[in-house]
Amino acid sequence: MMTQSFLSVEEFASLLAALPAPDQGAIAAAKARNNVLTKPPGALGRLEEVAIWYAGWRGEAAPVIKVPQVLVFAGNHGVVAQGVSVFPAEVTAQMVGNFAAGGAAINQLCTMAGASLDVIALELENPTADFSKEPAMSRAELVIALKTGWEAVDVAADLLVVGEMGIGNTTSAAAIATALFGGDAADWAGRGTGVDDAGLARKVDVINKAVKRQAVASGLEVLRCLGGREIAAMAGAMARARLLRIPVILDGFICTAAAACLHKAAPGALEHCLAGHVSDEAAHRRMLEKLGKQPLLDLGLRLGEGSGAALAINIVKSALACHSGMATFDQAGVSQE
Amino acid sequence: MMTQSFLSVEEFASLLAALPAPDQGAIAAAKARNNVLTKPPGALGRLEEVAIWYAGWRGEAAPVIKVPQVLVFAGNHGVVAQGVSVFPAEVTAQMVGNFAAGGAAINQLCTMAGASLDVIALELENPTADFSKEPAMSRAELVIALKTGWEAVDVAADLLVVGEMGIGNTTSAAAIATALFGGDAADWAGRGTGVDDAGLARKVDVINKAVKRQAVASGLEVLRCLGGREIAAMAGAMARARLLRIPVILDGFICTAAAACLHKAAPGALEHCLAGHVSDEAAHRRMLEKLGKQPLLDLGLRLGEGSGAALAINIVKSALACHSGMATFDQAGVSQE
Repeated sequence: MMTQSFLSVEEFASLLAALPAPDQGAIAAAKARNNVLTKPPGALGRLEEVAIWYAGWRGEAAPVIKVPQVLVFAGNHGVVAQGVSVFPAEVTAQMVGNFAAGGAAINQLCTMAGASLDVIALELENPTADFSKEPAMSRAELVIALKTGWEAVDVAADLLVVGEMGIGNTTSAAAIATALFGGDAADWAGRGTGVDDAGLARKVDVINKAVKRQAVASGLEVLRCLGGREIAAMAGAMARARLLRIPVILDGFICTAAAACLHKAAPGALEHCLAGHVSDEAAHRRMLEKLGKQPLLDLGLRLGEGSGAALAINIVKSALACHSGMATFDQAGVSQE
Repeated sequence: MMTQSFLSVEEFASLLAALPAPDQGAIAAAKARNNVLTKPPGALGRLEEVAIWYAGWRGEAAPVIKVPQVLVFAGNHGVVAQGVSVFPAEVTAQMVGNFAAGGAAINQLCTMAGASLDVIALELENPTADFSKEPAMSRAELVIALKTGWEAVDVAADLLVVGEMGIGNTTSAAAIATALFGGDAADWAGRGTGVDDAGLARKVDVINKAVKRQAVASGLEVLRCLGGREIAAMAGAMARARLLRIPVILDGFICTAAAACLHKAAPGALEHCLAGHVSDEAAHRRMLEKLGKQPLLDLGLRLGEGSGAALAINIVKSALACHSGMATFDQAGVSQE
């Protein structure tokens, strides 16, 4: 299983077409255990469903989470030439330096979650093509970006968060959403890190023109034509996690756009993913609805870096700690109804 | 400050009338710091407001949370004679045993949150009086319960969660809410740990009669006449935390009912408290609205034990870890807009 890989977009698509399913025996055993823990039935709410879901992917009735991994991918975007961001493109590399020095939000959140953090910069000096004029990536570039994500996943991890940093990438994510789900770009584009009305209008215009010109046939073509290297790397990491049966917590708008490309390419490809949070970027909620995902957290975050998903790690760890660590009524000598 | 105490309900009320305010200088300094951290303004959403609020109570511009304490109080209720619970009263003591043995949800959640846990049983063999017939507690009993909570707070703690265990105590909490906020008991009573329609009808009837008969003049009288020892202990702990400038995370319906008595007794008494979650007990949301509190989590929990608030500890710790641990734009050499 761990040796599966790909050397072309078609081979990646073939892997997506044959993804593993959760272990129904482990799900049944986890449900049975959940029913006899020392609490009224259902009293732990969504923690119970998260624990059973996780047990199914790990193939164990009572697992615990010990090795959460956070991956942050960084990339630069040719579309920033269109004036769609308030921050200059060099901030991507500066923030990668900040991640390395431990100064960013995601560093603190990983420490609090007991998670490892790997930051992977993808050719920052070589932005993707401006997707308002041509496809963002060649097929070879897409494969390399997917593989970068694929290979970054720690085979020993038992929970994965994928995050991103890339000036201009909310424009890319909104373009992906428009191409995948339809409607006008105005339905999917927001203020990102804080563009004004004129900047937002430019974003919408750029996306509408790009989506109209580049008719896209598949989820992976959307990813190639409108995505970015860090977005493709996130998709590659999520797919690899599925093969390794490592559950994934989705982060915000850009991460979810990467996930949506997989969903379009292979329905069911996101069954091993849960939504860590819903961001303050308004279209994120709509995208999660399209994917049938209910977020764990709703705290108005809109930072990226994997921050919202990293904040949800402790919720998921806590769900499993309760599920696998609590006593049963019999063990504790507690009377039932 | 740490030597303040009380020997009567009146002395406790006097303490409530002179509660300390947050440190405005620390709030201003925390806001200034928040504005220069390496993130777009507001991108950490509610984490930013939680960090600034916490800084104000601790009187520091950039504090971190190292000593969270969880207190779980247990008590028994005479009103169970009215058939308002599906679990027998002996479950209260059995669950205290389960807490001691480490088998309950709150044990696992405290471990995950890095919090200490103290469980304090209040005269379980001596239930409060049946409030459908007479006041639940005498004034002396109320004082002892308040003091039990008051004295349980660790003066070295820097964050406090108060939780409870008490078969029958959702009936007590719904009675408190009805008395404090008005309306019919049907607006405030829910299924607790799972009563059927007939049990819920009995709950509503018992509460309506009790509230009608016992006209109550003040928040502390509501607590005495309709509360329970564990509910009063929670109120005592929250008040002590305020004097010690220890921020409090409120748990669910019963904890919030205890808090609401303080709010009624002294407006502003809950400024050092935030709502950790909104429970699946429907009236909890309405009670939080009455108190002007927006919950951090909404995960359908309805267990008590401090579980929802304990789950929120990591969110609050993470908010402060970001606020106090992140680099500024200058420190990181990151360009601003």
